[in-house]
Amino acid sequence: MTRLPNFSAGPATLPESVLRQAQAEMLEWNGVGASVVEISHRSKEFIELAAEVEANLRTLLSVPDDYAVLFLAGGATTQQALLPLNFATPGGTADYIVSGHWGKTAIKQARPVVKVNIAATSETADGKFLRVPARSEWQLTPNADYVHITANETIHGIEFRDTPDVGDVPLFADFSSNIASEPIDVGKYALIYAGAQKNLGPVGITVVIVRRDLLERAGLPRADIFNYASHAARDSMLNTPPTWNWYLLGLTVKWMLDEGGVAEFARRSARKSQLVYDAIAQSGGFYRNEVLPEFRSRMNIPFFLPSEELTAQFVVESKAAGLLALKGHKAIGGIRASLYNALPVPAAQALAGFMRDFQNRNG
Amino acid sequence: MTRLPNFSAGPATLPESVLRQAQAEMLEWNGVGASVVEISHRSKEFIELAAEVEANLRTLLSVPDDYAVLFLAGGATTQQALLPLNFATPGGTADYIVSGHWGKTAIKQARPVVKVNIAATSETADGKFLRVPARSEWQLTPNADYVHITANETIHGIEFRDTPDVGDVPLFADFSSNIASEPIDVGKYALIYAGAQKNLGPVGITVVIVRRDLLERAGLPRADIFNYASHAARDSMLNTPPTWNWYLLGLTVKWMLDEGGVAEFARRSARKSQLVYDAIAQSGGFYRNEVLPEFRSRMNIPFFLPSEELTAQFVVESKAAGLLALKGHKAIGGIRASLYNALPVPAAQALAGFMRDFQNRNG
Repeated sequence: MTRLPNFSAGPATLPESVLRQAQAEMLEWNGVGASVVEISHRSKEFIELAAEVEANLRTLLSVPDDYAVLFLAGGATTQQALLPLNFATPGGTADYIVSGHWGKTAIKQARPVVKVNIAATSETADGKFLRVPARSEWQLTPNADYVHITANETIHGIEFRDTPDVGDVPLFADFSSNIASEPIDVGKYALIYAGAQKNLGPVGITVVIVRRDLLERAGLPRADIFNYASHAARDSMLNTPPTWNWYLLGLTVKWMLDEGGVAEFARRSARKSQLVYDAIAQSGGFYRNEVLPEFRSRMNIPFFLPSEELTAQFVVESKAAGLLALKGHKAIGGIRASLYNALPVPAAQALAGFMRDFQNRNG
Repeated sequence: MTRLPNFSAGPATLPESVLRQAQAEMLEWNGVGASVVEISHRSKEFIELAAEVEANLRTLLSVPDDYAVLFLAGGATTQQALLPLNFATPGGTADYIVSGHWGKTAIKQARPVVKVNIAATSETADGKFLRVPARSEWQLTPNADYVHITANETIHGIEFRDTPDVGDVPLFADFSSNIASEPIDVGKYALIYAGAQKNLGPVGITVVIVRRDLLERAGLPRADIFNYASHAARDSMLNTPPTWNWYLLGLTVKWMLDEGGVAEFARRSARKSQLVYDAIAQSGGFYRNEVLPEFRSRMNIPFFLPSEELTAQFVVESKAAGLLALKGHKAIGGIRASLYNALPVPAAQALAGFMRDFQNRNG
């Protein structure tokens, strides 16, 4: 059994202690005579687990009391489809800010049911994204139903470093790939959503944090299972939730609290990303990341080598060196290192060392 | 570590060998240097796993080649919302047959977007369900968009024992709680769906088996993530699927094949359910199940005791005797024994023995 530094963009590496606990409890959990994956979501034991996970997540993220926290099946893309169904008004307009691939995905999911205004996009003429659009460029719709941003673009490696001010219009944010990586003021957002498989734990479950007054909006015609208010009213047990995923998310959240919370992960994220960005900066152009420095993601670092051949060689040799999942997303190619909370600092050090070594041999 | 006979209606008991394998592989899987829950769904290794699971499931259920098999996040209720979005025609009507609670849920999810015709219901004036509506009673809509049935009603313990003939109208069936429990002719259905957490494995993933020509229907305006055709075109990897759940489903499907396939589980289901129904029949009215014998479910057996006090006592004493999760669903009360594929025959024998013993002491 050899566990290796894993730079996967998601599903992503988990804390080894979390996996060890899940392993120990796989056949029987908490003295109930069965695994947690085998018991009813309506059992006393699971309801207690769910409540504890919610309480811990509220503590971790400093979620105000006037926000509901939902644990929903599936990924962030499903939420992108549910946002307009729940919060658009008939004939209304939703504003979207595009700073990368996932902002475009959010629009794709919304367009069939709501009028979308692309209030700003930083896409260049040749299809690149190198920054977050400056707030001064945003062409917001007066009385828009909401404004949607992608707090971190996993593929393009672009991160909002501040919460934009959009006045009284509800601000919705996809935090899938940078939630819990630094302190944020939840109160500045109307809704935050995050697929868990990057910073919060396992794949198959998504967290939605929504200001409760928003849940009173009528929205558009939709099934009850697509209704956030119904999920909130039933503590995310409107139907059978992904219980095992919820459990593993809970172990990961607990681990983050035990390690020192988001302030500590902000420190680690700064350190890890600095190690890799330094290796890029000090490579004399051998490694390239063109994102404007103030928008560079601390979570996902895409970078490029001088040729396709060297890129392919880097992929093969890094894997041979025991550094997993560094191949870039097919949308932009190159290399991508994801440095989520569960990735230890020494893994980033190992990557930076490998980058220098690879350059010495091939630069 | 004590594993006990577990009659949970779902999430439900899993084969111990499946859990042991998941346990052994929790920290590292298949020599990849990480757990299966930590790797990309787009990695070569996971794509191979996914293809193998699909092939095994096709073998287990004898799925014809002209059907797509989808592995989707969430539960059956989500599919109930997606059916009309994908297959209703503007202004069209969908026919629903109601034989219990879940048939009503299916209607609740569909109604916001399609005209629903309740073509038949077996609900009695006092809200009971004791049979499947006779085919001769069905008031089908000519050229309906589809007909929906619930192959097994998990709460009311009512099972279709034959596939109804609905002519050329596509027949959709919720097989969540009896899939893979006996051979069925998939070709008689246009679409079958099943939450996996009863007979197929873990919670958090749902299987949809759909005749490919249906995927060409335009349906209603909807997000791409709600589009079955998009999921089919991308081998259920349109977005990040619940990979760990898919893996555990795969282990369970493999176990069912190794045990002898659906023919063997049909034998075991007959044996297990007979044990419990016999204990009811031989109780002289102490235990009651009012469902008409030809519609009694082999998967879920609800039964009632002479008083609320005895019911409560049965719940407490059965748990003390090491028989888990026998409390009935709150919608109808009483006791419920779920006898899914992973529940061993001796567990049903133990329950039947306990029932006789309890009656002897309290009858």
